Amino acid sequence: MKKVKATMQDIANQAGVSKTTVSMVLNNKDSSISDTTRKKILEIAEEMNYIPNSIARSLSTNKSGTIGIMVPDITNPFFSEIARAIEDAANKYDYNVIFCNLDNEIVKEDKYVKLLVSKLVDGVIFITGGNSDKSIDILKGNNVPFVFVDRYVKGYEQYYGVYSLNKEGMTEGIDYLYRNNKRKIVFVSGDPNLGVSKLRYEGYKEAMEKYGLYNEELIFEGDFSLDGGKKVTKDIIEQIKDFDAIFFSNDLMAIGGMKVLVKNGYRVPEDVGIIGFDNIQIAEMMEPGLTTIGQPIYDMGKEACELLIGFIHGEDNNEKIIRFKPKLIVRDSV
Amino acid sequence: MKKVKATMQDIANQAGVSKTTVSMVLNNKDSSISDTTRKKILEIAEEMNYIPNSIARSLSTNKSGTIGIMVPDITNPFFSEIARAIEDAANKYDYNVIFCNLDNEIVKEDKYVKLLVSKLVDGVIFITGGNSDKSIDILKGNNVPFVFVDRYVKGYEQYYGVYSLNKEGMTEGIDYLYRNNKRKIVFVSGDPNLGVSKLRYEGYKEAMEKYGLYNEELIFEGDFSLDGGKKVTKDIIEQIKDFDAIFFSNDLMAIGGMKVLVKNGYRVPEDVGIIGFDNIQIAEMMEPGLTTIGQPIYDMGKEACELLIGFIHGEDNNEKIIRFKPKLIVRDSV
Repeated sequence: MKKVKATMQDIANQAGVSKTTVSMVLNNKDSSISDTTRKKILEIAEEMNYIPNSIARSLSTNKSGTIGIMVPDITNPFFSEIARAIEDAANKYDYNVIFCNLDNEIVKEDKYVKLLVSKLVDGVIFITGGNSDKSIDILKGNNVPFVFVDRYVKGYEQYYGVYSLNKEGMTEGIDYLYRNNKRKIVFVSGDPNLGVSKLRYEGYKEAMEKYGLYNEELIFEGDFSLDGGKKVTKDIIEQIKDFDAIFFSNDLMAIGGMKVLVKNGYRVPEDVGIIGFDNIQIAEMMEPGLTTIGQPIYDMGKEACELLIGFIHGEDNNEKIIRFKPKLIVRDSV
Repeated sequence: MKKVKATMQDIANQAGVSKTTVSMVLNNKDSSISDTTRKKILEIAEEMNYIPNSIARSLSTNKSGTIGIMVPDITNPFFSEIARAIEDAANKYDYNVIFCNLDNEIVKEDKYVKLLVSKLVDGVIFITGGNSDKSIDILKGNNVPFVFVDRYVKGYEQYYGVYSLNKEGMTEGIDYLYRNNKRKIVFVSGDPNLGVSKLRYEGYKEAMEKYGLYNEELIFEGDFSLDGGKKVTKDIIEQIKDFDAIFFSNDLMAIGGMKVLVKNGYRVPEDVGIIGFDNIQIAEMMEPGLTTIGQPIYDMGKEACELLIGFIHGEDNNEKIIRFKPKLIVRDSV
């Protein structure tokens, strides 16, 4: 690392012009400068890998052209697929995207919100859930626009956000299991502190009660991960002898759970029907293919990004809350 | 968004002290200030969600406490699992991590390198491959330390980096297929412009030649994705009638490929043996479980992060290049 960072003065020396001329060209205030000189300066700047100090600039303009995304768990495909969609939309509007992985830890959330605010991002897309009041206060206190995706935050249900109709999705899944003669349907909830977990549980409960099948011994809880699904399914096998279906709160858990069932001699779907939630890409690849409640992952990310960018630009005619209806994707696991 | 961002003056007014006193406390230069006053100022700053402008500070100290990671495709679990490991290690050393998704596009790479440099990150972890000369020049020209992971960059093979021994991994896989009586072994390469693709191809070629089995009609090419694996496997089925194994250059392709084979009436492993490369978490969940050449993904990310942080702190006693030997993970697909 011996090279020294190029400055405007270096460019000026090389081009044989004044530093002021260089500054005018690089800041697009060069109306009085000849095309030849402008071209020469830009070429030298390119050669020297000169990078305008966008930080100094963003301090004065208060715009960075960058959006921050807070992702709960970057190894969960649901979030990486949403992040991808947000990025595609952001790039269309010439915004860069920076990802922060929260790892479901409130301590990290706090730290990363402060990091994003201090880096002067223009806005934040927040996939958090749980107890995010402090982070939200920081964003509001610093006038940073933000939008929620997927996970409701208590007290902010009417704020800018993009969501799925979780209860409706659960109802559709239970109806489908019922039509396939499943009666002892286990439900695996995710982290019970998340609004999205509560909604899915409520959807399950209402639908099961409609058929007179609700029994709280059928309710289990696990992490929204492959390992979470494996662990909870071992518990289910040990604790309940008699069940004919499991409705997992996300696809990753369902995939982990299917593996445990097959290893323990259960046939899917003959002995146990399985439904997941999300429709991540890998769901289709499983054997049997995973039947699931599909969320329009790509569209949710895209809409969230467009909502945020509208918000940043002060457009107030948009809908503030966008709700998507999830859709049953029938494959071979029921 | 009506609240106004809190300033040091606001804190001073609230605490009934001078702005200088507030500044001294917030910048840890408060040796002459009483504990009571210090505590009061910190409490008020916390209440007001005051965020020190770390940008202004990083302009003077040239340290941001942040590492940037350039990821080729955030939806590929190999990269999100590595990113997770890097983050765990970084957090231990009190560094924050920012992710940029390159989407395998050189244009984005260029843009994001500039973004990271202009945000004054302390270092960059680069999972690029291909033609990254320009990005590297920018990093060097701006004295930003960087480390490569997984993918070699031409001309920089001796630079700081963490890699797998790709050729050795391929040899181990071919030997295993041979021992399992596979003779017509198709090879699916990833993007041929990547050094890692070339090394895997060379490993395949040498091992096949050792057994007198090499035949260039068995060589195919695909994207490092589920769809890439599906597409290339359809081509293989159409173009070659006689094959008994497929060695895919990564697990995602192998997973996509297995699905296509099963749909077309092939039995895995009886008719066709399948090997992948990486050992992403989902590989174990497939039915049959995917046999693969396992890379120590978590350790690779961790070592890369520690290498970079040592580099940032000017430690020169470290090994510059760390190579891991991949390991055959036997499951049920061969």
